[in-house]
Amino acid sequence: MNCDSVLTIAQQSRAAARQLASVSAAARNRALANMAEALEAVKQSVLEVNALEIAKARDAGQSDAMVKRLTIDDKTFNYMLSRLTKVAQLPDPLNRVLTGHTNPAGLRVYKKSVPLGVIGIIYESRPNVTTDAAGVCIKSGNAVILRGGSEALQTNAILTDAMVAGAVAAGLPQHAIQIIRTPGHEAVGELLKMDGYIDVLIPRGGKGLIQRIAEGTRIPVIKHYDGICHLYLAGDAESEKAVALVVNSKCQSVQVCNALETLLVDSQCAERLLPLLNDALTANNIELRGCRQTQALLPGIAAASEEDWSTEYLAPILSVKVVAGIQAAIDHINQYGSGHTDGIVTQSLSLARQFEEQVDSASVMINASTRLSGGGDYGLGSVVGISTDKLHVRGPVGPDELTTYKWVAVGDGHLRA
Amino acid sequence: MNCDSVLTIAQQSRAAARQLASVSAAARNRALANMAEALEAVKQSVLEVNALEIAKARDAGQSDAMVKRLTIDDKTFNYMLSRLTKVAQLPDPLNRVLTGHTNPAGLRVYKKSVPLGVIGIIYESRPNVTTDAAGVCIKSGNAVILRGGSEALQTNAILTDAMVAGAVAAGLPQHAIQIIRTPGHEAVGELLKMDGYIDVLIPRGGKGLIQRIAEGTRIPVIKHYDGICHLYLAGDAESEKAVALVVNSKCQSVQVCNALETLLVDSQCAERLLPLLNDALTANNIELRGCRQTQALLPGIAAASEEDWSTEYLAPILSVKVVAGIQAAIDHINQYGSGHTDGIVTQSLSLARQFEEQVDSASVMINASTRLSGGGDYGLGSVVGISTDKLHVRGPVGPDELTTYKWVAVGDGHLRA
Repeated sequence: MNCDSVLTIAQQSRAAARQLASVSAAARNRALANMAEALEAVKQSVLEVNALEIAKARDAGQSDAMVKRLTIDDKTFNYMLSRLTKVAQLPDPLNRVLTGHTNPAGLRVYKKSVPLGVIGIIYESRPNVTTDAAGVCIKSGNAVILRGGSEALQTNAILTDAMVAGAVAAGLPQHAIQIIRTPGHEAVGELLKMDGYIDVLIPRGGKGLIQRIAEGTRIPVIKHYDGICHLYLAGDAESEKAVALVVNSKCQSVQVCNALETLLVDSQCAERLLPLLNDALTANNIELRGCRQTQALLPGIAAASEEDWSTEYLAPILSVKVVAGIQAAIDHINQYGSGHTDGIVTQSLSLARQFEEQVDSASVMINASTRLSGGGDYGLGSVVGISTDKLHVRGPVGPDELTTYKWVAVGDGHLRA
Repeated sequence: MNCDSVLTIAQQSRAAARQLASVSAAARNRALANMAEALEAVKQSVLEVNALEIAKARDAGQSDAMVKRLTIDDKTFNYMLSRLTKVAQLPDPLNRVLTGHTNPAGLRVYKKSVPLGVIGIIYESRPNVTTDAAGVCIKSGNAVILRGGSEALQTNAILTDAMVAGAVAAGLPQHAIQIIRTPGHEAVGELLKMDGYIDVLIPRGGKGLIQRIAEGTRIPVIKHYDGICHLYLAGDAESEKAVALVVNSKCQSVQVCNALETLLVDSQCAERLLPLLNDALTANNIELRGCRQTQALLPGIAAASEEDWSTEYLAPILSVKVVAGIQAAIDHINQYGSGHTDGIVTQSLSLARQFEEQVDSASVMINASTRLSGGGDYGLGSVVGISTDKLHVRGPVGPDELTTYKWVAVGDGHLRA
């Protein structure tokens, strides 16, 4: 792949985006249904090509975790299709009148949602991102340029070809969905230079990948670096609920961005709760690293260093700190957290309110597992990523978040006085 | 000013922003009223200090335009105060529930608007930005760091001191409003490095200033570089209305970003309209630069070069192009425009609809002067800038646009299955 071909793809996407701006919701939803149907028709080929790429990854000595992410089995495939069908059923994110106003002279003004334009998705091995991202982008009237991991190149290509055929059959432009088919970093480097054609980039993957992209482009990037998620157990936290919430937040899946990384226990309940927590977490093979007060109450556990408080383990490790009251908990979260998902366990409305107001994070959970933060439980349908930035989108990135708006002013020869 | 003091200001603003997150709308509106009152009390000093700075600017050989921008007279001062009073009367931009959802297990989720945090405003000579920007930031619960032009340093300082006193009297934190009081580029350079403390920068001024800021910082920037605004006169445009709209869009004020810079005339009405337009614009001392077809119909006018189509004159010059139909007009605007404000003059609903859908600009005007695009006629009250970017805010930047949101999920021990 030389520079010209990435440029060509970007230009074709820009032209497709211009056409997509006038495509009806009915046509976009028909395209999504067609895409699911076309994928169903190539299911056997997808599984075969994927099996070959899995074998190749295994031969190359890739980790089990990586191979797992790469794998499409029957269940995964059906789930991918169901997501396309579901996103088709969501309300149209476009042409919503967001606000309106008639000025004193009778100029009618309204602000309506429109597609962002061209969206670039750069992701690592999971091939389900190929269909999820295309689905959310088409739903929101955007052209999409996909760039998946090299390990899944053939799998992604066959998925994309099927989706393109489905979309085109519904009247969408040929280049509404495109994928960069050449392996290697060079093509990604070219993509990052396409600020004249691409409106936003969404990188999905490890922190290193995301940093390289955010720091290497003038294109706006929707991203999150990490999820250093906290639960704060207030002094009045009920023992059973608190333990269940901590265990679910930490253990349900340790490798995800909304898993618990640091537990803050109020000094008022530390003596009551820490032994129970230690038992439950140890039973789940979680290693605890505690502050001095935690160590005093749980003799034998390792000490947490200053670095632990700002570490996203993505592993069966949990840092634990005893804090003197809610303000100390909030300050710790605002200082060390990543603004992703942070929760409180309490029976007090007033503590819950203070926590909700003062914790500066995308998601604030009150008596709920951190693992519940995300597009699914928030009712967004399908999402293409999560943002811990504050501008444009914060938290899950669904179809609504891939829109911008324009102001339309309708007059009858209205002039400025 | 050394690095430490900009750092101190940034840290103080961050701390103030944390406190502001819990300040009620009533207290913020009281602060705005107090700020107007406190300014009224120092009116005489402001006018005197401003007169000294005007004299200094004149002595330094500054242009009349610059001196005019710097000047606060009685009328300007009263207008500045009235804007603070008006912004207090707007609906609260915070704690709006933007969407809500209850998941099947009964987890209650809502998305509510919250302040962005700390906003930096970097602007040139106009001292009215000092009060306008502070007003919009306080309304939206943000801490603000002001950095005005050196010529207005003393004027801005006295305005800021009065506003701080007013805000503090309403219970707002001491550092909710701060201004950098040291002249020179060094302090601005330090400000650009404060990405750990400042959530967004809004530069106001010439394209050069804005580019230097956007390219010199990791802090997100809300900006517009220029306003290359178009009107397209469709074949069916009524003569009288078309001429009045062009004259108003171009002549009402030539130095502003929503003034007309390029006129596109459909070939179907060029013969009918161009002579009328030439008369009206010439009577207003506007120089026309035309394409070949324009020159053929208006012998003697200058030729427009390729460069003219992407030039924001901010001067009594207008480029004119004859286009063969609406698609050519739309394509020209999307290619050469700056996405600021572009309009159509037509009697046809279907042409208006096509233009509205396909022109990719922040504001699309239908039978209305380009000069009507902006916070005032859109009903936003006070604004701190205009964005031609697509993410977060597009068009005028008012109090609503200085908010982000957080997701709040309220459960009763809800776990992820």
